[in-house]
Amino acid sequence: MSEKKTSITHKENKNQGKAKKAQRFYYKKKTKKQTSEKNLSKKTSNTSSVKASPIRIAFLGGLNEVGKNMTVFEYEDSMIIVDCGLAFPDEDMLGIDLVIPDFNFIEKNHEKIKGIVITHGHEDHIGALAYLLKTVNVPVYGTRLTIGLIQGKLKEHNILNKCKLNTVNPGETVKLGKFNVEFIHVNHSIPDAVGFAIKCAGGTIVHTGDFKIDSTPIDGGMIDLARFAQLGNEGVLCFLADSTNAERPGYTESERKVGESFELLFRKAGNRRIIVATFASNIHRVQQIINVAEALGRKVALSGRSLENVVAISRELGYLKVPDGIIIDLDLINKYSPHELVIITTGSQGEPMSALTRMALSDHRKVAITPNDYVIISATPIPGNEKTVGKVINELLKLGAEVVYEKMYDVHVSGHACREELKLMLGLVKPKFFIPVHGEQKHLQKHAQLAYSMGVDKKNVAIVDNGSYIELTNDKIKKLPSVQAGKVFVDGIGVGDVGSIVIRDRKHLAEDGIIIVVFAIDCVTCDLVSGPEIFSRGFVFVKEAEGLIEEARKTAYDAIMKTNDKNWNSIKNRVRDDVSKLMYERTKRNPMILPILMEI
Amino acid sequence: MSEKKTSITHKENKNQGKAKKAQRFYYKKKTKKQTSEKNLSKKTSNTSSVKASPIRIAFLGGLNEVGKNMTVFEYEDSMIIVDCGLAFPDEDMLGIDLVIPDFNFIEKNHEKIKGIVITHGHEDHIGALAYLLKTVNVPVYGTRLTIGLIQGKLKEHNILNKCKLNTVNPGETVKLGKFNVEFIHVNHSIPDAVGFAIKCAGGTIVHTGDFKIDSTPIDGGMIDLARFAQLGNEGVLCFLADSTNAERPGYTESERKVGESFELLFRKAGNRRIIVATFASNIHRVQQIINVAEALGRKVALSGRSLENVVAISRELGYLKVPDGIIIDLDLINKYSPHELVIITTGSQGEPMSALTRMALSDHRKVAITPNDYVIISATPIPGNEKTVGKVINELLKLGAEVVYEKMYDVHVSGHACREELKLMLGLVKPKFFIPVHGEQKHLQKHAQLAYSMGVDKKNVAIVDNGSYIELTNDKIKKLPSVQAGKVFVDGIGVGDVGSIVIRDRKHLAEDGIIIVVFAIDCVTCDLVSGPEIFSRGFVFVKEAEGLIEEARKTAYDAIMKTNDKNWNSIKNRVRDDVSKLMYERTKRNPMILPILMEI
Repeated sequence: MSEKKTSITHKENKNQGKAKKAQRFYYKKKTKKQTSEKNLSKKTSNTSSVKASPIRIAFLGGLNEVGKNMTVFEYEDSMIIVDCGLAFPDEDMLGIDLVIPDFNFIEKNHEKIKGIVITHGHEDHIGALAYLLKTVNVPVYGTRLTIGLIQGKLKEHNILNKCKLNTVNPGETVKLGKFNVEFIHVNHSIPDAVGFAIKCAGGTIVHTGDFKIDSTPIDGGMIDLARFAQLGNEGVLCFLADSTNAERPGYTESERKVGESFELLFRKAGNRRIIVATFASNIHRVQQIINVAEALGRKVALSGRSLENVVAISRELGYLKVPDGIIIDLDLINKYSPHELVIITTGSQGEPMSALTRMALSDHRKVAITPNDYVIISATPIPGNEKTVGKVINELLKLGAEVVYEKMYDVHVSGHACREELKLMLGLVKPKFFIPVHGEQKHLQKHAQLAYSMGVDKKNVAIVDNGSYIELTNDKIKKLPSVQAGKVFVDGIGVGDVGSIVIRDRKHLAEDGIIIVVFAIDCVTCDLVSGPEIFSRGFVFVKEAEGLIEEARKTAYDAIMKTNDKNWNSIKNRVRDDVSKLMYERTKRNPMILPILMEI
Repeated sequence: MSEKKTSITHKENKNQGKAKKAQRFYYKKKTKKQTSEKNLSKKTSNTSSVKASPIRIAFLGGLNEVGKNMTVFEYEDSMIIVDCGLAFPDEDMLGIDLVIPDFNFIEKNHEKIKGIVITHGHEDHIGALAYLLKTVNVPVYGTRLTIGLIQGKLKEHNILNKCKLNTVNPGETVKLGKFNVEFIHVNHSIPDAVGFAIKCAGGTIVHTGDFKIDSTPIDGGMIDLARFAQLGNEGVLCFLADSTNAERPGYTESERKVGESFELLFRKAGNRRIIVATFASNIHRVQQIINVAEALGRKVALSGRSLENVVAISRELGYLKVPDGIIIDLDLINKYSPHELVIITTGSQGEPMSALTRMALSDHRKVAITPNDYVIISATPIPGNEKTVGKVINELLKLGAEVVYEKMYDVHVSGHACREELKLMLGLVKPKFFIPVHGEQKHLQKHAQLAYSMGVDKKNVAIVDNGSYIELTNDKIKKLPSVQAGKVFVDGIGVGDVGSIVIRDRKHLAEDGIIIVVFAIDCVTCDLVSGPEIFSRGFVFVKEAEGLIEEARKTAYDAIMKTNDKNWNSIKNRVRDDVSKLMYERTKRNPMILPILMEI
């Protein structure tokens, strides 16, 4: 918590466009060292005159799920982590705010961990980092925007000044113990995304991170396919690749396509106000909205805290180019006519508390929807969100707005590679072993089938799960006994204090509510001195069910009186059983029954 | 409950293929009577020498939602109801089993109700009928299969013998008070579906029900387009049409297409066992599975109670043609080799308790999934079910089965008309007024826009909501003040006893659990004689949070002691507030706090 360290990290923020580099760690491509390393890589892949140690990979998240990506690479006494993301709770994880990986494996091996390298700044890749660094404070390496976004998170958690953040440019390599990790530029739905070439004496592993191939990206250039091809030629022992879109045929469209749609739609909006909902982190999308707004003489206002944050960081670091005077404060929108405005907002997934949802429910303090609004939802519903997104669209339509959504125009493209792109990458990287990552079982299997179809040997492909622990040698890929991995629930500020028993109780309470039976017994005479009284919550509307509640009271009274032994537990169990039985008979419901015996 | 009535209704079941007709009600097409009626219809639509009374329509369900379709038509002293469906609960309706329409408007007008006519046997059209008939026992009219399915439901509710069910053939007309209702054959994903021409002195209203245009249906012939066209030529005052697929361009494929896919896929399955998941009520789908199974020499077993029921009724009534010996008991599947079997199952929507879900979770008593299984999911996820369906697919894949699902082959077609079909119907029926029904706001608006694009005057189109009350005269459509309509929750056997307060409590309990603070006070001396004791459920795992619970106890104790006035409510409020504040500070959560004061 020293002031000094904080000021160093802050200085980095001010040095826009100029990355802080710990020079001792890095060397550029095409130096002598790399050449020698290349030879090393070749040697280990192609010959085995010196027997290298095996490489191990522990998968702590991101498999058979969407989110909480985290993988550990191990070579002799060195371990590095790739990504540390969060997942959003499933609907059956009642009351849970976030899900993070189980860090047990990291804690047990914390002395081996040389650093954590981050592919890009999305929540499912950086969202659990603050929780990890509170446990194991290892140095973090990422590209400039990624580090900028991480700084924001660590600040929220009040640990920024304690953390060791390092900025790396795509094309550079960082040495972490016995690993050299090269950052390779890829395209994705956030700028500054990278994949990695992870090299050690055991061989080269290539990890794509989240990627797509965009030959006409908005900024930052096309994915460095040449480098992936070069690595392929040098010999890649194992390839880990993004499986998100492994079900989708063809190619993912270029982000630029969305810009063309915006131009068309903004003109169709005519004199109406335009509202565009998108992901906060999709800076290239925001850039395109700003560009078209400028061309058509509209001002841009932002609504949504995460959007404002990301836009501020991206502008500061030069990833978002905003002409002077284009962005206005949301408080000032009433000073402009509808045709002079574009509002960019969050909530494209229909998130209950988001800006767009509040607009749709007429609950936004600054933006009231009218028939003079033209709303563009520039995103596809993530599976599971279709219904909430549909609700937002319906409510906006009821208020008279016109709503353009996914099915109708090209207002969104994916950030992930489709099947033809995945095949292309497999063809360039030509790995000996292949492990599809980032996806549910169906995505992993489809991706594996693509590899088979391209001639990769079935026994060289591993479909892994969270907890899988893989060992790679030059000629074999095998599964070791699993390591501990799983879901840790974050609820409020509690991390891991809500487990399966609490969730089970919440489900029971949610389903049928609770009935509390309270009675007081004199612990000397064993006489019932007060009660039983019945309280219920979430069961029935008590005022209209007085008869039922009175019946419950009588049943409880009988149960107390009938129980001859003076064992308090016997009495309570009898009360629970009898009241439960009565309630099921009368209502066919199973509320939780909680008998409380007060000793006087 | 008389035995006699029961036996009459049962007899109907035995009279396979022969509908019970109350002849006094019906007359065939092209009789004299119809001709005179036609003239009457023409007169009211085209001239107004005798001023007819207005027709009114009350919409009690099916608008801005999917499900619980119910509409009331009113002319002078006559009312008829079209459909009486249920809806499945949204995920925020915690613990609710079913949602049915609010019957208040029906109860208030029960003397005017002449009957209820049913378009087809899907739950969203017949599922609330048993609840309605318990309240208002009006005669029910439907086609043969529809009535067969309704009988099953009424039997479950133990009211079959009290109800007046009448079978009507497509093409026939039934007279209900001042209405004549003609049943018109349409195509849909269940056999025996109809639309209605509802005629009275005020004019003709055409209601499609759920429909599609299938020129090569499996059975029952193509939708009676000629009759819709004839009605259009005679003059239709108002048209109500299914909007479900109003967003989808083009035409819905024929059900026969799915049969072709089955043939292809069944061959691809080779020596593996085939499992096909589909909707229980999609009898034509089941027929096609049986046909292909027979052709390839496989036996068919059924898994899922609803499927067994529907298949039994459909076979009995002749809607499903099953060659002898093809269907075997699920208990006998182990006597056959995998390549000799097809299992048809429910659960295509990933419903938690369904047969397919239990198979996927290795929790089915009779069917164990292995790599020797070839599973076809012959359905599209209904919006909101994508995630549960995805989970089932992932689990089946993990067990080694091959799974064919929607994205990959034509294993499902919709039962609803797409945009080109909707336009065709509008073009044939040529209504003066148009009301899009069956759909969310986005569907209704898209359907209305289709009508505008075909030249229907904007002021002649009404977009209505549940509760809307519309009045139609020859030259005007107008909205009257709304009638009572809404959602009534069914939970267990309780109908309407769980309302918004109970649901709100359930949400609160689900989110953060409950903390109960119990203490006993001597009501003479006002001394604290026992407690406070703390109980919690769904909040934290108490064994690991003993410190927090002890803090809560102390806080409650202080609150009780500090409160000087002897008003029990003041004490309880203070306990609630202080404990709540403490918990929020410590955990950033808001559990429900329930202080219970026992007077001794």
